[in-house]
Amino acid sequence: MTPVHRATAALLREWMLEAGLDAHIDAIGNVVGRWRSARPGAKTLLTGSHYDTVIDAGRYDGRLGILLPIVAVQQLRLAGVALPFSVEIIGFSDEEGVRFQTAFLGSSAVAGSFDAAHLDRRDAAGISLRDALIAANHDPDAIPALARDAAQLLGYLEVHIEQGPVLLTEDRALGVVSAINGCVRHRVAISGEAGHAGTVPMDLRHDAAAAAAEIILLVEQRCAQVPGLVGTVGQLGVPNGAVNVIPGACELSLDIRAPSDAVRDAAAADILAGSARIAARRGVALRIDPLLKVPATPCALNLQARIAASIGRVTGSAEARHLPSGAGHDAMQIAGLTEVGMLFVRCGHGGISHHPAETLSAEDVELATAAFMDFLQQFPIPDAADNQARSDP
Amino acid sequence: MTPVHRATAALLREWMLEAGLDAHIDAIGNVVGRWRSARPGAKTLLTGSHYDTVIDAGRYDGRLGILLPIVAVQQLRLAGVALPFSVEIIGFSDEEGVRFQTAFLGSSAVAGSFDAAHLDRRDAAGISLRDALIAANHDPDAIPALARDAAQLLGYLEVHIEQGPVLLTEDRALGVVSAINGCVRHRVAISGEAGHAGTVPMDLRHDAAAAAAEIILLVEQRCAQVPGLVGTVGQLGVPNGAVNVIPGACELSLDIRAPSDAVRDAAAADILAGSARIAARRGVALRIDPLLKVPATPCALNLQARIAASIGRVTGSAEARHLPSGAGHDAMQIAGLTEVGMLFVRCGHGGISHHPAETLSAEDVELATAAFMDFLQQFPIPDAADNQARSDP
Repeated sequence: MTPVHRATAALLREWMLEAGLDAHIDAIGNVVGRWRSARPGAKTLLTGSHYDTVIDAGRYDGRLGILLPIVAVQQLRLAGVALPFSVEIIGFSDEEGVRFQTAFLGSSAVAGSFDAAHLDRRDAAGISLRDALIAANHDPDAIPALARDAAQLLGYLEVHIEQGPVLLTEDRALGVVSAINGCVRHRVAISGEAGHAGTVPMDLRHDAAAAAAEIILLVEQRCAQVPGLVGTVGQLGVPNGAVNVIPGACELSLDIRAPSDAVRDAAAADILAGSARIAARRGVALRIDPLLKVPATPCALNLQARIAASIGRVTGSAEARHLPSGAGHDAMQIAGLTEVGMLFVRCGHGGISHHPAETLSAEDVELATAAFMDFLQQFPIPDAADNQARSDP
Repeated sequence: MTPVHRATAALLREWMLEAGLDAHIDAIGNVVGRWRSARPGAKTLLTGSHYDTVIDAGRYDGRLGILLPIVAVQQLRLAGVALPFSVEIIGFSDEEGVRFQTAFLGSSAVAGSFDAAHLDRRDAAGISLRDALIAANHDPDAIPALARDAAQLLGYLEVHIEQGPVLLTEDRALGVVSAINGCVRHRVAISGEAGHAGTVPMDLRHDAAAAAAEIILLVEQRCAQVPGLVGTVGQLGVPNGAVNVIPGACELSLDIRAPSDAVRDAAAADILAGSARIAARRGVALRIDPLLKVPATPCALNLQARIAASIGRVTGSAEARHLPSGAGHDAMQIAGLTEVGMLFVRCGHGGISHHPAETLSAEDVELATAAFMDFLQQFPIPDAADNQARSDP
């Protein structure tokens, strides 16, 4: 709801209109473009992704999954294709949760799982989400009505940059997401004993940063044991540290993900127990605050098969790569509403994301667009009679 | 030169005047109190310590070595003692170097080793030391003239809280400093590769914080091998770290000290070489900037013997404890001018210092004051004839 955020929404709506879609901005700021099928009783296939970004982000994370469907639908229309179902492209207003320290504000509204308590969350300047929406001429009371009727939906397909190095390493342009990894996050605060760096012998120290160092290496070592399991200490610091003072405190964040909740939970349990042992041995205190726990989201097998088939047809490759997504996506929210599938596009530059160096190639996006168009054209009409009807000339 | 700093100097000067000293604040902000001897050609014994502090400091670090001599000299004067030499008590204005990221501004001026280039250093607000001095009505051009004439000095005695646990552990009130440990400091900046915490497999990461963790544990392990050697990573942080981003950068400070320069340098060399190996193995880059290298300062043997004798007389203990100082002191600067000695007072509360919990007992300070007065009264007059003169009634 910042001026830049609102200008982005307005521009997306304009591009949707230019592509021939009905388009509007909804009560939570989602930009919704509809390509209505003329077929009576046509259901709707959802697609989309988010247009917000982390701070100092890459260009493609989120936006690719809005812009690519706009182009694909425009191409189909220009080619005279009339699909037997409607397509709805949604640019979700908030997936990253930067301003209000939450996430999925846009997709949770569509999924019907929007938590009204979030309206009272405040940003760093003290402005509530409710007031930010009202100031942008949105009606917060209209958010519950954004929830879609599952009975009218055929599923959800999200196109997204991989944000990792797997496809790049294996020299593949596209991939099929098997599941979106679950995630647990904790904040860890270590309290040791500050002291003069020159005067306290090594064996009398209770150094909070040294304890943190052991925990970081434990996270690394434990997570390296299982393929697909990842653990990250992304935030780390000695508050008010001085070059000549033994750290009396150290704070760190812990983020653990895996395609399976059981694998992830076992790793988290081992890491927290190991951290407690490290703290006890060093005579430092540990405070662990759980921040987040999100279960893994499996992608629907039939959508995976259809995405794989489309990839095969446009790339000529016999077998598509199925891989888990380490990052969270709007598909996690929409999975509560309808079946979800995801098409990954190779991420260049070592797979770097959440960083201005994030990149992808025009050729890969061309292939992804072709696969997306193929997916739409091959998508079955809900009942057999209709499918038969379409296969006739 | 902050308002609080200047108020402290003014108060110290008042207390010196109340104790019967000539007192003034010099061009670098030192508070200088002189008890002049009536004896013609009398030389001067220097004493003192610093009145600035680290941020969130203890109460006694520095101040004890100014206040205790003021009280001792006042007691001697009230008792009608007339010493055959002058005593100069100096409250040094800057030893910790908090504002201008340097150290020993006060004592280096007295020692004649003040570096005029420091006048152009700027604080966090961009104010230069020169401008800060001028704004406080000091004349920076008068600093060189503060250097004392070594030929007129008998030596320097500094009283200081130990700032460590050695005397406390051994149940002794007072100690004689044998040497002030040398110190090397480096700033270490690690550049790895940022990435999404969920998408980059553990074996493809170049995590700057994980490299820092290994370096911290290397410092700890290497320094624990030699008694008296200490190594500290006091500052540690991932700049702009985010819970879901693999650290692309990590910064830390390194401080290594030992009573012997050879022991310290060998440890520093091992740690820097080991850090380079860690960085190479992990595929991260290391930038190491030397910050400081101060050689160890031995205390004069004759002053050590006199301090030990005074401790023996006031405590009744047969043998005084000699110990190195792990912390730096103004005596390090004054050692370039005249012989130095230091009297340590037991530090309570586990030996904690540079922390508000720093403490000492009134009984120990009473003993230290008695030892200081004894030291002054037993101090020999520079030539034998004079000493003979004093021993006469």
